[in-house]
Amino acid sequence: MSHQPLGPGREFDRIRAMAARWGDRARGLGDDCAFLEIGGETLAVSLDLAVEEIHFRRDWMSPAEIGYRAAAAALSDLAAVAAEPLALLLAVGAPASEPEETHAALADGVGEAAAAAGAFVIGGDLAASAQLVVDCCVIGRAAKPVRRSGARPGDRIVVTGTLGLPLTAFTAWTVGREPPPAARERFVRPEPRYAAARRLAALGATAMIDISDGLGGDLLQLLAASGVGARVDVLRIPVHPEARTAATRLGQDAWAFAARSGEEYELLATLPTSVGDEELRDLGIPVSAIGTIEAEPGVRAFEDPRPVTLPTGWDHLRTT
Amino acid sequence: MSHQPLGPGREFDRIRAMAARWGDRARGLGDDCAFLEIGGETLAVSLDLAVEEIHFRRDWMSPAEIGYRAAAAALSDLAAVAAEPLALLLAVGAPASEPEETHAALADGVGEAAAAAGAFVIGGDLAASAQLVVDCCVIGRAAKPVRRSGARPGDRIVVTGTLGLPLTAFTAWTVGREPPPAARERFVRPEPRYAAARRLAALGATAMIDISDGLGGDLLQLLAASGVGARVDVLRIPVHPEARTAATRLGQDAWAFAARSGEEYELLATLPTSVGDEELRDLGIPVSAIGTIEAEPGVRAFEDPRPVTLPTGWDHLRTT
Repeated sequence: MSHQPLGPGREFDRIRAMAARWGDRARGLGDDCAFLEIGGETLAVSLDLAVEEIHFRRDWMSPAEIGYRAAAAALSDLAAVAAEPLALLLAVGAPASEPEETHAALADGVGEAAAAAGAFVIGGDLAASAQLVVDCCVIGRAAKPVRRSGARPGDRIVVTGTLGLPLTAFTAWTVGREPPPAARERFVRPEPRYAAARRLAALGATAMIDISDGLGGDLLQLLAASGVGARVDVLRIPVHPEARTAATRLGQDAWAFAARSGEEYELLATLPTSVGDEELRDLGIPVSAIGTIEAEPGVRAFEDPRPVTLPTGWDHLRTT
Repeated sequence: MSHQPLGPGREFDRIRAMAARWGDRARGLGDDCAFLEIGGETLAVSLDLAVEEIHFRRDWMSPAEIGYRAAAAALSDLAAVAAEPLALLLAVGAPASEPEETHAALADGVGEAAAAAGAFVIGGDLAASAQLVVDCCVIGRAAKPVRRSGARPGDRIVVTGTLGLPLTAFTAWTVGREPPPAARERFVRPEPRYAAARRLAALGATAMIDISDGLGGDLLQLLAASGVGARVDVLRIPVHPEARTAATRLGQDAWAFAARSGEEYELLATLPTSVGDEELRDLGIPVSAIGTIEAEPGVRAFEDPRPVTLPTGWDHLRTT
């Protein structure tokens, strides 16, 4: 199995360099999950490191929230490929002086996220480390995996839910304000779209990714993997009202603010044109059609009718 | 599936506390690997965090050696349950300033360990972190898994290879000396016992564990999981000549030094009495019979014939 082409970015440069060293020893890199065929089934597996000061700060979230969020972020990778969550392994790195209550609270949060996904905690590891590290490996069953690479010219581009709350929370915290309750809740308790993902797969989704690096950045990954481009009507990007308020306060366009917001864990998917708006209404959560896949590479974004640039740049490699 | 009882120790107290919070949401904790039944097959999965300054130091090992060792340590968990290695996922946390060459060299080492195990690299994650973190998830097929819990009174206790080199290397480094070449080589390039593990399973091994916390500590885990005790003839513990020299220099008994040495990645197994010494000679590596399982809990160690205490205490939670 060959790897899927990755989009631009420093993290992806590093992954490309590592994949080059592995040659034939590596297989199928570049999706939200790795796939493993066994006993006639396709397993989806993902490994996700959440590191203090990078993915979370202890003054922003309680240990239970840190655990919930790390597990939900990992489990969202299963949603991204339309896999059914089965199991989770948890490794925690913490300072040797860390009180035992931290581990118990992390366990509470991880357990809650696993329960919401219908997954069981089956193992893990503990280690000492200077920063708190919460590392989740998740395993699911992918009866009909949806990869990043199947988008075809003409496909509709859809996104679940409304965007912008995580960046709203992040922005408030970084200037020392308490975020609006809806933004804080969304940041600390993301809701991976397991059910919607499987319904999108059943509707014939040709490609899918979960929004962890921002709609703009993740769209580039999907397009790179599929070898296609896109036309996006930015005014159709669904923005949460609180995010709209936050964007206005910053003097930014709401759609641009929402497109930069990462760790959303909403789904970005492409669907055949045959899938109509009524079918999208049956997904249990709002689904917005924001554009169309085109053969020509690159993103052509329009703000009715002015050409604009869809921002990217939620960078997990930032050091906060 | 209930959890296996864990032995004493601070790390295990934390795991017990976490498992208590999970209740029914957790399944089968306490073995070297988690097991997952899928498509009529049993998968073995393990997650292993290696953290700078805890599991390795950059002035002791090159990035390629750090990668090899982290992957081999994780893959050894598959050997411990007699599983056939299939796949590995790698997550790396590194400072944002880390040169790309570090990732490439880590990839080289991980790829080499995967190749030695016959496993493929199928995915992973990159994150920023203050310390270098190398996190491996390994997946194997366990046609006939050997757990820690099956040891029965009368079983023979055997250990593969010779012990003591990792502690020899560690001791030299911590006092600022270069370790003897054999000790350094063993520390940076452990050789998980995949083939021997499967032969021990074929011989009917009733319980097995890989020696990561020292023979003394890991024997306690195996006994706790099996609900039995052991009689050990400490003079039969196989000690590498270099480790013997190091122990003598420190004024310690060679067997006690070897029993404390962790991150050995040799196997400690129990076998029915029907397995004779000739069969053990066919394992491809030296196998030493060091004692017998007894019904009465606890370890009764003898130095021909003086009762002695088998040391434990290779503590991954140390902060070096």
